[in-house]
Amino acid sequence: MLLSKLCCERTKDAPGDAKILSHILLSRAGYIKQVANGIYSMTMPCEKMSQRIQNIIRDEMDKNDGQEVLFPVVMPREIWDLSGRYSSIGAEMVRFKDRSNRDMLLGMTHEEAAVHMANHTVSSYTQLPMMIYQIQTKFRDEARARGGLIRVREFTMKDAYSFHTTKEDMEEYYMKMHKAYQNIFRRIGLKRFIDVKSDSGMMGGSIAHEFMLLTEVGEDSIVLCNDCDYRANMEVATSIIEKPEFEDKQLELVDTGADKTIEEICNRFNVPASQTAKAVVFAVKGDQDQIVIAFVRGDLEVNEAKLKKALKLDVVAYDGGVSDVVACGNIGPIGLDSKIKVVYDKSLEGTKGMIVGANKPGYHYVGFNISRDVKDVTFDDISKVKAGDKCPICGGTLRIENGIEIGNIFQLGTKYTKSMGMTVTGPDGQLFNPIMGCYGIGVGRAIASIAQESNDKDGLILPISVAPWQVHMCILRQDDPVVAEKANALYNDLQSNGVDVLMDDRNCGAGIKFTDADLMGMPIRVVVSPKSLANDEVEITIRATKESFKVKYEDAISKIKSMISEMMEQYK
Amino acid sequence: MLLSKLCCERTKDAPGDAKILSHILLSRAGYIKQVANGIYSMTMPCEKMSQRIQNIIRDEMDKNDGQEVLFPVVMPREIWDLSGRYSSIGAEMVRFKDRSNRDMLLGMTHEEAAVHMANHTVSSYTQLPMMIYQIQTKFRDEARARGGLIRVREFTMKDAYSFHTTKEDMEEYYMKMHKAYQNIFRRIGLKRFIDVKSDSGMMGGSIAHEFMLLTEVGEDSIVLCNDCDYRANMEVATSIIEKPEFEDKQLELVDTGADKTIEEICNRFNVPASQTAKAVVFAVKGDQDQIVIAFVRGDLEVNEAKLKKALKLDVVAYDGGVSDVVACGNIGPIGLDSKIKVVYDKSLEGTKGMIVGANKPGYHYVGFNISRDVKDVTFDDISKVKAGDKCPICGGTLRIENGIEIGNIFQLGTKYTKSMGMTVTGPDGQLFNPIMGCYGIGVGRAIASIAQESNDKDGLILPISVAPWQVHMCILRQDDPVVAEKANALYNDLQSNGVDVLMDDRNCGAGIKFTDADLMGMPIRVVVSPKSLANDEVEITIRATKESFKVKYEDAISKIKSMISEMMEQYK
Repeated sequence: MLLSKLCCERTKDAPGDAKILSHILLSRAGYIKQVANGIYSMTMPCEKMSQRIQNIIRDEMDKNDGQEVLFPVVMPREIWDLSGRYSSIGAEMVRFKDRSNRDMLLGMTHEEAAVHMANHTVSSYTQLPMMIYQIQTKFRDEARARGGLIRVREFTMKDAYSFHTTKEDMEEYYMKMHKAYQNIFRRIGLKRFIDVKSDSGMMGGSIAHEFMLLTEVGEDSIVLCNDCDYRANMEVATSIIEKPEFEDKQLELVDTGADKTIEEICNRFNVPASQTAKAVVFAVKGDQDQIVIAFVRGDLEVNEAKLKKALKLDVVAYDGGVSDVVACGNIGPIGLDSKIKVVYDKSLEGTKGMIVGANKPGYHYVGFNISRDVKDVTFDDISKVKAGDKCPICGGTLRIENGIEIGNIFQLGTKYTKSMGMTVTGPDGQLFNPIMGCYGIGVGRAIASIAQESNDKDGLILPISVAPWQVHMCILRQDDPVVAEKANALYNDLQSNGVDVLMDDRNCGAGIKFTDADLMGMPIRVVVSPKSLANDEVEITIRATKESFKVKYEDAISKIKSMISEMMEQYK
Repeated sequence: MLLSKLCCERTKDAPGDAKILSHILLSRAGYIKQVANGIYSMTMPCEKMSQRIQNIIRDEMDKNDGQEVLFPVVMPREIWDLSGRYSSIGAEMVRFKDRSNRDMLLGMTHEEAAVHMANHTVSSYTQLPMMIYQIQTKFRDEARARGGLIRVREFTMKDAYSFHTTKEDMEEYYMKMHKAYQNIFRRIGLKRFIDVKSDSGMMGGSIAHEFMLLTEVGEDSIVLCNDCDYRANMEVATSIIEKPEFEDKQLELVDTGADKTIEEICNRFNVPASQTAKAVVFAVKGDQDQIVIAFVRGDLEVNEAKLKKALKLDVVAYDGGVSDVVACGNIGPIGLDSKIKVVYDKSLEGTKGMIVGANKPGYHYVGFNISRDVKDVTFDDISKVKAGDKCPICGGTLRIENGIEIGNIFQLGTKYTKSMGMTVTGPDGQLFNPIMGCYGIGVGRAIASIAQESNDKDGLILPISVAPWQVHMCILRQDDPVVAEKANALYNDLQSNGVDVLMDDRNCGAGIKFTDADLMGMPIRVVVSPKSLANDEVEITIRATKESFKVKYEDAISKIKSMISEMMEQYK
């Protein structure tokens, strides 16, 4: 490809809304162009990179006997009604009426379509295990699109669906896909990626893993153990909570004046926060009259995802409407309206000598003993892990890092096959609902992740396994006919030797050419100039290390080819 | 791939709504599965075929310096307002509001997105000519989806957009793309395809060509000359109209009783239909009060597409509302309300001695001379070509065939670059709007076209250039361990020799296997059976000709490989 004709403009500055490095670099290098909020066009270099990633994904899927298929982007309401997700998914799913006034939607995920395809098509357990996947455009109407390709509304995704006879078979296949995902991320050149246990969220099912790229700009918090392999998404992470023992006293109502916050109470009584209980008020989603109060120890925070799971209910922040109990401020476990749903964190189990609100303006209880003072209390894990907590596996120290989700895999069970009535004849002749797994990777987010992780002050440093072109040739003084001829010959010979080359054939200075080459990030730069040709040489520079050397013009092709195979080794 | 695991069910019967062969065969072979009206999932064989076609298209685009990019499926109203098409395109374009209440749409075509990408990115004429293309999902809310993949609502399409400095450059490039399209259709194995001049329709622009597959199930009518290369879509086809001379007489009002139709008038006066004029009533789209009357010679029909072009207005059938002139029935050119828009076909130019309606119940005029009896008359070509008409190029005989549109190319001019404000600096330093061309192919329709054209009573006959697998192996008696071992060894060896193989490893009879193999249509069938292995042989059958022969087991791979290269020759 000739750079002079490439529809891809490099710029010095990024768009004003570009705050994170991958967004800035992909914009400045001309790889992406914004069409609307969270919606981008991809120019040739970006689309080439996308296709290289897609082909690596395909290869790993096919190794696990994946069958590439294609589901529709636009689907009818009917199949989503069967799974119940037409109603349960919110505004992030685009719904519209077609010209015949039928309810249609844009697929954000394709469990329903996968079961629709497999249903009646697969009739016997002998056809299982079976995995179908597609690579296609999805639209998710994110409330907060941001970060260039990190969180978009429209994206290319590989989504795979497997069907199994037994749970054991599904688990075995799930582990193979887990391995395939690790292969994919390694092969596309990511370094700091990990897998973490995660919440299965809207997908349903039990066990799920997310693959995360550890990066400070990540929106997700990941809990990792310094001493063992434990790691989990904050939403499901647990820790061993140390329980200091406090003296068991008689319950006493104490005038605490205007003191309300944990900090104020700790100061007044000179106690640690762990000797208090904190009340956090939520409401059931869609009904602010149904209040939910979550109690955690004063030094901890409520983990909303865990709370929802414990409640089996979707909750949102309480909007502060009129409610006696909330208005009073000093919320505590004693004497609460029995209509209010209350959840206690396991950090409060067995505690005594605590200070808690008294549900009465200006008062707290001192000497609170939960098992003595509250009837029929049960405890759930609803608190957030903190950095420094003890690892639930080895007791080591937990730390928290930020990450971007780059892939996810789910053990779905029979949620979809059951609700959509998919049955298959088993070995015993009886019909059963196949057990499913599903597996997703966003291609655009993979591009953003590579850009985010692999760069320097001058621009992108693309892994050779996914770079749009392996070689970026710069001709200096192409108005010199000897230079032009030699450069063109090398360009053509490299291509006929199977090397992907972008050649900067513009009439402009060396500075502009080198700046653009660094920004665009191809792994190998080759410079053909009057100076080097005088010695019958060309100059080769490795983008990642900036290491430069000269080779004889006639050796250039074999040298470049051997560099490429050597570089490719680490992505195999 | 093992057929026992393939998610693809073959059936004896097609769905009830499948009327045409490609729909019936693709359904019966399990290649497609309907999700909603005009919306299909594609199973692995169909998706593999789709990708082979896509790769042939890519190859031809890249030969013409195409840059593969990706535009969004979902676009904001704003860029479509610039071109005016947000309003001008009807219900076939899906529009919806996103969660921020912004107007969005699903792209049916991407001229706006292409100009959005190129605008500001391309700044100088030195970057032109430049062509960008994508292969992506489009949605068009067809009122009348039908025929399986022939006319769907959701489809995969390659759409390309070129930008040029001069009209000459655009025309030269257009011819290259014309050639590329011929290459594509030949390489994917279509035989009866032609290019025809067509109407540019909603795309704007002047010159356009459609590529059509000639097939009796086609919805389009194509005019072809038996004696020269002339061919055109009915919408734009012209012919030399023979003009019989009739005696010039005085105009006379004649009582014609209840006779109204051309046939009745011809019978009453014993004249040919060509001695009468026919009035066809239309109304401006959206306003049934604005009547348009088209006059053609009595033996001809009105061509609506030509009429719209002549009027530069969109018209629809008149709905028969109250109007004196229409109510009377005998509509003629004399004495029409001057508010009515009238268009005369060129077949009426210079006519005399004609019989026409008198705009008066029960009366016609005889002896009508159009230049004498109507003031300021102009003529347009608004009549339909008939089979047997004379070719406008060579005077030979025209015939009419049905066809399916399989691709189209347009010379767009500056419609989009002008309306979207895209300018580029020219050689003279002045800014100009680049001249565009655009070029589309539907991949799903290509699949349907191949299925429609290439089959026999037993099923599909797929060209080797696009067949999902080159070889369909059938193991007979795979419960025989010797057979199973030999078959598996051959299957693995073929694959490691780069041959794509589908192997029917099911525990079922030979009849079922052969029926499925014929239905699915792979070019080469290889049978491994106890009988053939007894002579150390396998049986090879060519799907297209049903020619069968035996080869030694150890020669099978080299024989199959040479058959594949030989078969591939015709698609190069």
